[in-house]
Amino acid sequence: MKKKVLVLTGGGDCPGLNAVIRAIVKRASQESDWEVWGSLEAYNGILKDPMELVKLDFERVAGIHAKGGTIIGTTNKGGPFAWGVQNPDGSFRTEDRSNELLKRLKDNGFEAVISIGGDGSQKISKSLFEKGCPVVGVPKTIDNDLSETDFTFGFQTAVQIASDAVDRLTTTAYSHHRVMILEVMGRSAGWIALHTAIAGGAEVCLIPEIAYNVKKVAERINKRFKNGRGFVIVVIAEGAKSDVGEVFGKKSTEYGYENMRLGGVAFQLSEELKQAGCEADIRETVLGHIQRGGTPTAFDRVLATQFGVKAFEMVLQGDFGKMVAYKNNDIIAVSLNDAVKNYNYVSQKSYLVQTARGVGISFGD
Amino acid sequence: MKKKVLVLTGGGDCPGLNAVIRAIVKRASQESDWEVWGSLEAYNGILKDPMELVKLDFERVAGIHAKGGTIIGTTNKGGPFAWGVQNPDGSFRTEDRSNELLKRLKDNGFEAVISIGGDGSQKISKSLFEKGCPVVGVPKTIDNDLSETDFTFGFQTAVQIASDAVDRLTTTAYSHHRVMILEVMGRSAGWIALHTAIAGGAEVCLIPEIAYNVKKVAERINKRFKNGRGFVIVVIAEGAKSDVGEVFGKKSTEYGYENMRLGGVAFQLSEELKQAGCEADIRETVLGHIQRGGTPTAFDRVLATQFGVKAFEMVLQGDFGKMVAYKNNDIIAVSLNDAVKNYNYVSQKSYLVQTARGVGISFGD
Amino acid sequence: MKKKVLVLTGGGDCPGLNAVIRAIVKRASQESDWEVWGSLEAYNGILKDPMELVKLDFERVAGIHAKGGTIIGTTNKGGPFAWGVQNPDGSFRTEDRSNELLKRLKDNGFEAVISIGGDGSQKISKSLFEKGCPVVGVPKTIDNDLSETDFTFGFQTAVQIASDAVDRLTTTAYSHHRVMILEVMGRSAGWIALHTAIAGGAEVCLIPEIAYNVKKVAERINKRFKNGRGFVIVVIAEGAKSDVGEVFGKKSTEYGYENMRLGGVAFQLSEELKQAGCEADIRETVLGHIQRGGTPTAFDRVLATQFGVKAFEMVLQGDFGKMVAYKNNDIIAVSLNDAVKNYNYVSQKSYLVQTARGVGISFGD
Amino acid sequence: MKKKVLVLTGGGDCPGLNAVIRAIVKRASQESDWEVWGSLEAYNGILKDPMELVKLDFERVAGIHAKGGTIIGTTNKGGPFAWGVQNPDGSFRTEDRSNELLKRLKDNGFEAVISIGGDGSQKISKSLFEKGCPVVGVPKTIDNDLSETDFTFGFQTAVQIASDAVDRLTTTAYSHHRVMILEVMGRSAGWIALHTAIAGGAEVCLIPEIAYNVKKVAERINKRFKNGRGFVIVVIAEGAKSDVGEVFGKKSTEYGYENMRLGGVAFQLSEELKQAGCEADIRETVLGHIQRGGTPTAFDRVLATQFGVKAFEMVLQGDFGKMVAYKNNDIIAVSLNDAVKNYNYVSQKSYLVQTARGVGISFGD
Repeated sequence: MKKKVLVLTGGGDCPGLNAVIRAIVKRASQESDWEVWGSLEAYNGILKDPMELVKLDFERVAGIHAKGGTIIGTTNKGGPFAWGVQNPDGSFRTEDRSNELLKRLKDNGFEAVISIGGDGSQKISKSLFEKGCPVVGVPKTIDNDLSETDFTFGFQTAVQIASDAVDRLTTTAYSHHRVMILEVMGRSAGWIALHTAIAGGAEVCLIPEIAYNVKKVAERINKRFKNGRGFVIVVIAEGAKSDVGEVFGKKSTEYGYENMRLGGVAFQLSEELKQAGCEADIRETVLGHIQRGGTPTAFDRVLATQFGVKAFEMVLQGDFGKMVAYKNNDIIAVSLNDAVKNYNYVSQKSYLVQTARGVGISFGD
Repeated sequence: MKKKVLVLTGGGDCPGLNAVIRAIVKRASQESDWEVWGSLEAYNGILKDPMELVKLDFERVAGIHAKGGTIIGTTNKGGPFAWGVQNPDGSFRTEDRSNELLKRLKDNGFEAVISIGGDGSQKISKSLFEKGCPVVGVPKTIDNDLSETDFTFGFQTAVQIASDAVDRLTTTAYSHHRVMILEVMGRSAGWIALHTAIAGGAEVCLIPEIAYNVKKVAERINKRFKNGRGFVIVVIAEGAKSDVGEVFGKKSTEYGYENMRLGGVAFQLSEELKQAGCEADIRETVLGHIQRGGTPTAFDRVLATQFGVKAFEMVLQGDFGKMVAYKNNDIIAVSLNDAVKNYNYVSQKSYLVQTARGVGISFGD
Repeated sequence: MKKKVLVLTGGGDCPGLNAVIRAIVKRASQESDWEVWGSLEAYNGILKDPMELVKLDFERVAGIHAKGGTIIGTTNKGGPFAWGVQNPDGSFRTEDRSNELLKRLKDNGFEAVISIGGDGSQKISKSLFEKGCPVVGVPKTIDNDLSETDFTFGFQTAVQIASDAVDRLTTTAYSHHRVMILEVMGRSAGWIALHTAIAGGAEVCLIPEIAYNVKKVAERINKRFKNGRGFVIVVIAEGAKSDVGEVFGKKSTEYGYENMRLGGVAFQLSEELKQAGCEADIRETVLGHIQRGGTPTAFDRVLATQFGVKAFEMVLQGDFGKMVAYKNNDIIAVSLNDAVKNYNYVSQKSYLVQTARGVGISFGD
Repeated sequence: MKKKVLVLTGGGDCPGLNAVIRAIVKRASQESDWEVWGSLEAYNGILKDPMELVKLDFERVAGIHAKGGTIIGTTNKGGPFAWGVQNPDGSFRTEDRSNELLKRLKDNGFEAVISIGGDGSQKISKSLFEKGCPVVGVPKTIDNDLSETDFTFGFQTAVQIASDAVDRLTTTAYSHHRVMILEVMGRSAGWIALHTAIAGGAEVCLIPEIAYNVKKVAERINKRFKNGRGFVIVVIAEGAKSDVGEVFGKKSTEYGYENMRLGGVAFQLSEELKQAGCEADIRETVLGHIQRGGTPTAFDRVLATQFGVKAFEMVLQGDFGKMVAYKNNDIIAVSLNDAVKNYNYVSQKSYLVQTARGVGISFGD
C-alpha cells in the first residue's frame, strides 16, 4: 500500500494554487511509493460526513498550472479548531475538532498534510503540528503580508492586473482631464496598492499603513490641474485610513469587518474629495475579485511550482512543522512558529516607499 | 497656400480615436496641397479665445494608433449650439455660437471639418451642415448605439476588456462557489453587457432594453446552487432597469442622469439579490473607465483606420453632410440625416439575443 | 430513445472551435429529446475500429468557450472520401469510405451531422449531402478565406496576436533603428497579414495575392532610413510571392506544399533584402502556431457561439446541405454549393487594400 | 548654473529602460540644483560631432514607464574604448576614445554619468571609473546573466511573453497531437528558457549550460506519444548545444557569433529530431525580438523605477564606481569590480533546475 499525503487549500483563492498542487503531484509521481490526495474546500473534505477526498493524479492536474482558482476548492470560514456547528435554535457555535482531524488522518492512512494557505491557515498548521500532526505549510496570500517569505505567489498577478488597469485609465484620464480612483485589494497591508502605484505611474497612493489627510490629497490634485490640463491617478487600498480617525465621516472604530469589505471605498473617497474642494471630474473603478482570479503570471507560476516541489520534498524528508518560503532568491523552509509571528506591513522606511516618494507619489501624509 | 481640414474629437473618449486621426493625417499627406489641423477638446479649440489649434503632422501622429484616448483631447460638455457661458451671478446659460464657428472656420481657411463623435456630435454636425458647414462625420461610441453603422471602433475593445474580466472572475467564483456581479458600461443600450455575457459564458445578463425581475434572477441563481457546488456570473449594464418601475427601491423616474452614473449599480443589485433570497456569497466589480481606456484591439484599429482614410477621401470629393459607416462588411457614407434618426437598441428579436437565450443566459425576464 | 447529432471538427485547429461545440450542447439541452455526440479527430472517430465517439454533455463543455483548440481533436489528413490505408508494402493509398460513413451514422442512430471545418471540410460536407447525409456546415478558417461568410471565428484572434507582436517589435525596432520582419500565417490568402499591417502600423505588407518586387521593398526601406533614424516593420504572409516568378531563388513552381510550410520565409526574405541592398540591421520573428492557439478573443467567442446555436437550430429545422454564415451583420444559412464555389482572396480593389495604401503601407508592387 | 548628470542606455534594448530614465528624472526634479541629460545611442551622443545630447525633463518622460525600448536610443556596437573608425580603404578599425570622453564630460559640465547597460556596458563603466569618471551603473540584461543582482528588469517581461506563447501553443499541440518547438533568447545563459519551461509546463527544456543529446530528446518525445494521444512542448534557448560537440551537423567550434544569431535553431532542431526518429508532426515558433519589445510587466517597472531612484541617489551621495543591484529583496550598491567578475550561468545544482526536474522537465541530458 502506498504512502499518502493530503493536500488542501484554505482561505481566499489566489492565482498559483493550482500550480502548487500540480507540482506536488508531479514530484510525488517520481516516488513510486507515494500518492497524493486532496481534501475538498480546505478541512471540510476530511471533516465532513461523508468525507470528500479526491485522488490527485496526472490526469487531474494536466494543464492546471495555467488556471486560476483551485481545483480542490477553498473556504475562508472555519477550520478544525473553530468548526461551525448549528445550534437547535438556528444560531451557530464553533467546536474544536482538531483531535477528530488527527484521528481521521491516521485512520485514512495519511502520513503527511500539505496545507496551502495564508496567515490563518499557517496558524492552524502550527497548532496542528504542536498536537503531533505531520504538516508542511505553503504560504499563499494575494496581499504579500507574510513576513517570512519575500514573495508569495498570486501577488505579482494581482499587481499586474491592477497595473494594466492603471494603464487603461491613464489614457482616458489624460483625454478628459479627470481624476481616476482605482480601488485595489489590501485590508491591512498596502503592498498591492504600492506596487501598482509605482508600476502605473500614479500620483497618489493611499494605504492602510500610512493614514492620509484628505485635504492634502485634494491639494495635491488641484495643484496638478492648476498648471494646465492635467489628470490624476489615485490608487487606494480597500483598507486605507484617514488620519482624523475617521473613514468617510465615521470614526474608524465604528467600522467592523463588514464595512471594510471590498467596494465602496473608491466611491466614498470620491465624495470626500469633492467635499475637500477637489473640482475636477472624478471617476471610480473597483477591481474586486478580478485581482485574484484568472491565469497566474509566469513569475507566480514559477514560484508556485518551486513551492510545490519543495513542499513534497520536505514531506519526503519528514521535515514537518515548517513552511516553504522564498527568501534571498532561494527556496527554503522556515519554522511555522516564525512564520506566523509577525505580519508583513509596508514600512515607511522601506526602499519601496522611498522609491515611491522619489518619483513623486503622494501618500496623502 | 495649402487647403486645410479641421479634425476634432467630441464626447467620451474611445479606443481608436487616435487611429482615426493618424489615418486622416497619413492619407492627407499623399495629397500635396492639403494639411490637417486639430481643434483641442472638440469645438473648444476653435471657439475659445485664444483659439487652441494644433497642426497634425507625421511626427505628432507617429505610433498613436496603438494608444487609447485622443491626442487632441475631448469633452462631453457643450458644443457650438449650446456653448456654456457663465452669468455675472455665477450661474450658467448656453448660447448658440454656430454662426461664430462658421465664421472662424472661414477666417482661418478651413475648407472642411471632420468631426469624430457619438450621437450628440453627429447631431451637431447635421445642424452645422444644414447651415452650410462642409462637415464629414466619423461615428464613435463605445456603446455601439448608432443605428447606421454595424460596428463602431472602441466597442470591441470594451467587450474584450469586460470579457477578460469575466474570465478572471470565473476561476475565483468557481473556487469559492460565489456569485460575481460585473458592472459594465451601457446607460441606454446593453450591447457591451450582451456581448460580454456571451463571450464570457455568464449565466445572467441585465440590460436596459429588457426590464428584469429581481426575484427571477434570485431564483435562477439559487437553482444553480441547489444542484451542488455552483457559481454564477452576472453581467449588468449600468443602465439596467427593474420591471417594477423601480431601480433599487426608488421609482426609476426619480433617477436623473446623476444617479445613473457609473458605479453603485453592482453594489445595489447585490443588496437587492440578498433581499430577494439569494443565499450565496456575492462579490462586485465595477470596471468603470477601464473599458474605454488603453490600447484598442486590432479589430478596432483596422476599423478606425478605414474610417479615417474614408473620411479624408470624402473631404477630397466634397462629399459633405455624411457620416462614414461600416455596413455589410464595407466602408460607406450615409447621410447625417439618416445617421441620427434612430437609436440602436438591443432588439429582443435579434439573433444575438436568441443566441444568448440559446446558451442559457437569463435576462431576468 | 433520444435523437442524436454528431459533431466533428476537421482541418487545422482554430480559436473558437470549443465555443461552437459548447453552444451546440447548450442549445441542444433545451430540447428534451436530443443529445450531442462528438467524433474524435474529425471522421476518424466514427470510421475507425473501434469507433471513438464521446457523449458531449454539460460537464464536458463547462468553461471550454475560453479555451483554444478543440476538445474532440482534429486532423487535417484524409476524410471519408480519401481515407488513408496502408498497403502491404508500407506505401499508402486512399479509399472512398463515404458509404461506410453513411451506414455507420444510420446504424448508430445519428439523425444529423454538424461538421465544423474549412474549405476542405465544407467540400466533404457538400459531397456527403449529395449522397443523402443530413449535414450542416460551420465555417472555420484562421485565414478568413471562405467567400460566403464575412468573418470566420479564429481570424480576429490570429490578427490580434500578430498585432500585439507588431506592437512589441515596434519599440525595439525604434530603439535600435532596425528592420523587423514578422512572418504570419496565410498560404494563399493574405488577410491576416493585411489586417495585422494596418492594425500594427507596419510599413510593408507582403501577401500571396500581390506579387512583390524585392528591390522595391529594399528601396522603400532605405528611403525610410535615409531621412534620419528610422525603423521598419515588415509583415509577410508565409505564402507571399516575388514578382519574378521566384520565391527566394527558386521558381515558385518548384515549390510544393511542403516547401511552403510555415517557417523560413522571414529568414529568407531577410537574405533577399540584404542582397537587394538593404543596409539596415534586420531581425526575424516567426509566429507560427501561436496564431492559432490559445484563448479566443471576445469577438470570436461571440461569433462562434452564434454559429453553434444556429447550426443546431438548422438541425432542428431539418435545414441540411447548408453552412452557417455571418453576412451583413446577421447569422444566416447559405448552401454548401455556394459556400465552396469561390475562394476568398484579398482583392486589390477592396477598401481594405485602399486603406492600407492610404496610410502608406507598401505591398512591394 | 545647475549640476548635470548624463544618462545613457547601451547594448540591446530591454523593457524597463524607459522606467529607469523616468525615475532618474523624477527623482532629480526633487533636487533644485540638478538637471538630467541623455546621450543618444549610448556614448555616440557625446562622442559624435556634433554631439547629440538631449535635456530630459518632465514632459519628455511623461508616461514612458509603460513603453518598451528607450527614448534615447541604444546601440550594441563600439563604445569609448573601441570606437569604430572607417579607414580610407573602407575597412574599419577601433580607437580608444576614453580620454576624449572624459574631456567632453568635463567641458560640458557633467558631474556624473549613469550608464544603463549589460555586461559589456558595466565593463566599460568600470574602466571609465578607473580613469576617474564619476559613473554609476544600472544593470540591464534580458538574459538575467549578471551575477551580482538577483533580477534585472526586462527578464520577467521576456519570460511572461514566452510563457504566454507556450500557453497558446499548448492548445493547438493538444488538438493536433504535435510537437511544438519554441525558440527563445539566451545565447550563453538559459534563464529565459528555464523559467518559461516551468511556467508553461513544457516537457523539454534545452539550454546552453546543459548539453543535450538529441536521441534522448527524441526518446522522451516518442515515449509521451506511445501512451496514447500526446503532445509535447519543447523550449529551446538560441544558444543550446548538443553533447556531441556539434550543433546541427557542424562542430560547435565552427560557429562564430553570426551563426549563433537568433533564428534557425528551432527549425534545425526540428530536422535533428526527425533524423533521430521522432515521428510526430513538429512545428516551430521563433519569438525573436518580441521578447525584448513592448510594455514591461509590473514587476519590471517597479524594479526599474527602484533602480532609477537609487542610481540618482548614489550620484547625490557621490557613491561612484558602483552598480545598482537587487539583492535579497533590497536595493543596494555593489562595486563595478564585483559586478563584472562572474557571469551568471544556470547552475545544475540550483533549486530552479531541481524544480524543473521535479515536475518532469527533461534537459535532454
